[in-house]
Amino acid sequence: MSHPTATPDTVVEAYVATWNETDPARRRAGLAAAWSETGIYRDPVMAGDGPAGIDAMLAGVQAKFPGFVLARTSPVDAHGGSPGGPAGGPAGGAWARYLRFTWSLGPAGGPSVVEGVDFCTLAPDGRLASVVGFIDKMPG
Amino acid sequence: MSHPTATPDTVVEAYVATWNETDPARRRAGLAAAWSETGIYRDPVMAGDGPAGIDAMLAGVQAKFPGFVLARTSPVDAHGGSPGGPAGGPAGGAWARYLRFTWSLGPAGGPSVVEGVDFCTLAPDGRLASVVGFIDKMPG
Repeated sequence: MSHPTATPDTVVEAYVATWNETDPARRRAGLAAAWSETGIYRDPVMAGDGPAGIDAMLAGVQAKFPGFVLARTSPVDAHGGSPGGPAGGPAGGAWARYLRFTWSLGPAGGPSVVEGVDFCTLAPDGRLASVVGFIDKMPG
Repeated sequence: MSHPTATPDTVVEAYVATWNETDPARRRAGLAAAWSETGIYRDPVMAGDGPAGIDAMLAGVQAKFPGFVLARTSPVDAHGGSPGGPAGGPAGGAWARYLRFTWSLGPAGGPSVVEGVDFCTLAPDGRLASVVGFIDKMPG
């Protein structure tokens, strides 16, 4: 599936929405649209491989922390090309775009429980190839 | 080349040293030790492919900004396994380790001119597979 109209903002919006989608069928559909088939998620406490693995990971988070909401807390900072644009990199390698944004996780309307930053790499079709998270605030 | 004793700190120390090494032969040797043959560097204003491409990139930076020094300004935050350890990831994929640290670039002993953060991915042998930089401070 190609997303010629994807922008860094819409990619991250779709990604964040999957964290907050508790309907299994809608979450799986969102993950299939947002992620490359070989996409990987890694942070210090969780990992998921491919849309199905990431779906299981998110279902686990939602079961463990019911009512928690993931929210983006910074603009999306991006570089490295644009979907559908010319191949990036001085050696003419595959197109890639790199994104970062900060986020918080916690009860809706309440104080954040966990905060961090996600670093994302996009596949040539504009879907997520990798999301690697780092934690800036975590309960002791 | 394998680096069984590499740690996140020593990997980043070796990486930073190559930015500040102005002797071409020593810089090339440092890059060959620090980087995977297929390693890539990307930030919003520069890119380099492989140790030779990254060497050319650094030579350009040093020529344009003589006397500038790259300094790490945060601890190295790492997750995802350890060199020589078991394969990481729930699907038993290739070992990987993810690092981040902040840095400044500017005249030795002077105020920083550019500041940012690097996200790094390591190859199975502990060398750098990718470094993707983002800018937090840049002259207007």
